[in-house]
Amino acid sequence: MPQFRNIAFVASETEEAETARRDLAARYGSAAPEEADIIVALGGDGLMLQTMHRYLRNRIPIYGMNRGSVGFLLNDYHADDLPKRLARAETTVIHPLCMTAHDRDGVKHEALAINEVSLFRQIYQAAKLRISVDGKVRMDELICDGILLSTPAGSTAYNLSAHGPILPINAPLLVLTPISPFRPRRWRGALLPNTAKVTIEVLEPEKRPVSAVADNTEFRDVITVESAEESDIEIFMMFDPGHTLAERIISEQFGY
Amino acid sequence: MPQFRNIAFVASETEEAETARRDLAARYGSAAPEEADIIVALGGDGLMLQTMHRYLRNRIPIYGMNRGSVGFLLNDYHADDLPKRLARAETTVIHPLCMTAHDRDGVKHEALAINEVSLFRQIYQAAKLRISVDGKVRMDELICDGILLSTPAGSTAYNLSAHGPILPINAPLLVLTPISPFRPRRWRGALLPNTAKVTIEVLEPEKRPVSAVADNTEFRDVITVESAEESDIEIFMMFDPGHTLAERIISEQFGY
Amino acid sequence: MPQFRNIAFVASETEEAETARRDLAARYGSAAPEEADIIVALGGDGLMLQTMHRYLRNRIPIYGMNRGSVGFLLNDYHADDLPKRLARAETTVIHPLCMTAHDRDGVKHEALAINEVSLFRQIYQAAKLRISVDGKVRMDELICDGILLSTPAGSTAYNLSAHGPILPINAPLLVLTPISPFRPRRWRGALLPNTAKVTIEVLEPEKRPVSAVADNTEFRDVITVESAEESDIEIFMMFDPGHTLAERIISEQFGY
Amino acid sequence: MPQFRNIAFVASETEEAETARRDLAARYGSAAPEEADIIVALGGDGLMLQTMHRYLRNRIPIYGMNRGSVGFLLNDYHADDLPKRLARAETTVIHPLCMTAHDRDGVKHEALAINEVSLFRQIYQAAKLRISVDGKVRMDELICDGILLSTPAGSTAYNLSAHGPILPINAPLLVLTPISPFRPRRWRGALLPNTAKVTIEVLEPEKRPVSAVADNTEFRDVITVESAEESDIEIFMMFDPGHTLAERIISEQFGY
Repeated sequence: MPQFRNIAFVASETEEAETARRDLAARYGSAAPEEADIIVALGGDGLMLQTMHRYLRNRIPIYGMNRGSVGFLLNDYHADDLPKRLARAETTVIHPLCMTAHDRDGVKHEALAINEVSLFRQIYQAAKLRISVDGKVRMDELICDGILLSTPAGSTAYNLSAHGPILPINAPLLVLTPISPFRPRRWRGALLPNTAKVTIEVLEPEKRPVSAVADNTEFRDVITVESAEESDIEIFMMFDPGHTLAERIISEQFGY
Repeated sequence: MPQFRNIAFVASETEEAETARRDLAARYGSAAPEEADIIVALGGDGLMLQTMHRYLRNRIPIYGMNRGSVGFLLNDYHADDLPKRLARAETTVIHPLCMTAHDRDGVKHEALAINEVSLFRQIYQAAKLRISVDGKVRMDELICDGILLSTPAGSTAYNLSAHGPILPINAPLLVLTPISPFRPRRWRGALLPNTAKVTIEVLEPEKRPVSAVADNTEFRDVITVESAEESDIEIFMMFDPGHTLAERIISEQFGY
Repeated sequence: MPQFRNIAFVASETEEAETARRDLAARYGSAAPEEADIIVALGGDGLMLQTMHRYLRNRIPIYGMNRGSVGFLLNDYHADDLPKRLARAETTVIHPLCMTAHDRDGVKHEALAINEVSLFRQIYQAAKLRISVDGKVRMDELICDGILLSTPAGSTAYNLSAHGPILPINAPLLVLTPISPFRPRRWRGALLPNTAKVTIEVLEPEKRPVSAVADNTEFRDVITVESAEESDIEIFMMFDPGHTLAERIISEQFGY
Repeated sequence: MPQFRNIAFVASETEEAETARRDLAARYGSAAPEEADIIVALGGDGLMLQTMHRYLRNRIPIYGMNRGSVGFLLNDYHADDLPKRLARAETTVIHPLCMTAHDRDGVKHEALAINEVSLFRQIYQAAKLRISVDGKVRMDELICDGILLSTPAGSTAYNLSAHGPILPINAPLLVLTPISPFRPRRWRGALLPNTAKVTIEVLEPEKRPVSAVADNTEFRDVITVESAEESDIEIFMMFDPGHTLAERIISEQFGY
């Protein structure tokens, strides 16, 4: 059983989260995140996502406790016995997507996405997109509000809203889901192997401007967007036994 | 059988449509639209919609002929025997929606929509909306990409892409359809009587800017949008017998 | 305000419903249903449906009170002040469907359906059906588990499970919804005017036997099924003000 | 490159398939299936499924050629150069599901399913089912027309009709999809790891009789049905290069 001696606490800006951070730091000490053995994130799913983004290259396990409004990625909050809980927690390893977007000015942007890469129309004109997988054009022209490529971890988020299926956390898959497909109208998207490289070209980008978003990082006026799993990057999320992300996702699948 | 003596021709800007316009005008004469007994629109569905918008207060029947890429609202193109075809054509009367939007600067905007009124997020932040029908709050908070209210005539357009049902052209209904509902996630929208007045309030409009669109007329940064059928305005669309809009919509329902 | 002097009470077979029936009969007297001014049905939606079927030709208003597991069609249960509540209740008039089925032995069966007429495969072989509306073949061959035609009142029942839309109670429409369409696969069904006569022919009925059901009345091995609204029959359902069926259906549409 | 010296030909009962069988046997010789290096199946998807079922324990590769109405699992038909085509063909290995059903008379039935195991109500009474995965009850009570568990190979078949997602052929997943879920109404099913053991209990089996089907093998009046991937059984399907089942499934995902 691993011992986590140096715990870092990060919190969202609400009073509730900030209070919890002060209490826990007083009880258990507090390291700087970069030097910690484990980071405890106090807030909601937004703070958890932000913390994973910030420290994903540090390979430090992250354990979230719910002090916010939604807690899909988080453990229940208790102040007591934290070192024992951390020692017993189970690890889920996930990989982000790497998105490379080029915009109309020729600028190249890169960003990582833990949940999904999405493209979206900027004005009332529907987006017109060409979709390629592994260098092969699979759909010549999709007229739509947008499209998203989601990881299993993200499949319960935006993907579900866009009527895509929930993936088991360990499935070696990505899910490509259209948003309001206009032509072809009844296209429901595709499940792809997690090795797939997906390229979206924006057609008629002057008339039909489109933005690209990796989780919460948005680039406007893109013309091509490439996405693929970054299997070299491992993010270590920690959960109490019986409440792992795999278990939550299966529960979510049987919820309604 | 009505006689249409003064025919006006309008065309989209493609060479094909323009050529047809010249040919037909040479054969049958050409009135100014405002003074015509009937307007013949040559192009695609976009031109037909645009023509209906332009002349909807003139109460002049509009007969479309397909010289464009999509022809749901149009008759087949033939140059011969036009007066006889027009005399035999059947009329479908439709009503537009009237949208009244207020923006963040306090400016009030009004526009008519033949197909639908839609609201859409402007940036990556999901829209947060409150929905009232006839003054009663029906959904306190919808987190989503957007929402649309469609007429029967528009139910085969954007509404269908957003997974809403197709309505018969004469059904006294409007259809309210969410776009990527995030919370509540599995909400599928509602069919409302055509007398319904629908009010959408944009919550947190600074953080979550939303635009409102009536067909192709867009207003940015709105904070409230009211929509209702404008039953006083009648638009007269003309179709060859056996190819009326009612028939097309039922065919579309049984297509796939 | 109508006065209901002679009240009949009917109850489902549970002890809870039977107790309520005895209590109310002791307080308010009890007429035979056929001679009553109003029938009060005590139980769940099943009893309510059954009561409407039994007395629909008697034109007696029916007021349900919930003593069962589901209460979509029912008012809340209170024993006090019943005459006053009945006098204030609002009436919703609905029409049943009339189903005429012919089976393989040449026998003709008729039954009424308040919710829906449905067809269903009897064995593992998928049903193969031909669909006509008003005498015109609209789908030559549908391979599926089955199909249903629902009234607005039934649209929240089986139709909703089969992914059909909810109709407002007063919409002059019927909804035709396929069950697991195999070919064409992405057909979602059709909204039809309430004047539509829908004919379903069972193809290859020996290999692919199909049963037809009007609410809970089932006929096996059918070969043709015709359904249409029986507009001559009026069923009077009574609801407390603010809790009418129209209001429940709109609430159901905004529920999730 | 493998050489297939002894080719067996099997055909469906249509004249077209039978003629092809005679022609090919005359040109290339004909072995008994049990002694062949490869079996060439001539017909539609039904014959292909039937051939795989019959010879799946013989571990003989099966190459289908389309002489029937649907050809998802089949190669194009050409009579020439067959040995060369077979030598170049690529192999897809799939695993069946093993279904173990117990009926009301205490009889135990076993059958394999290449596409899916499905349960279905036998009469108008909706099925009431309890769902467990790996011994843990995941849904206490599902009221529905039925439910199915599909392999990736079967995900484009019945599963797709019941609104389930298409799986890549190599995804280590099974998909559990409800048919017309009545309560919970908006349940969309679950993607499960291919190691999952799924148990369905039929509740109230006297009132609500249910049949279980493994591909085309049906057992009536079942009370429990257990299903799991039979990973020991390998079925070798052969496809022309560029037309593998993986490619067909991805094409199907991008079709509409």
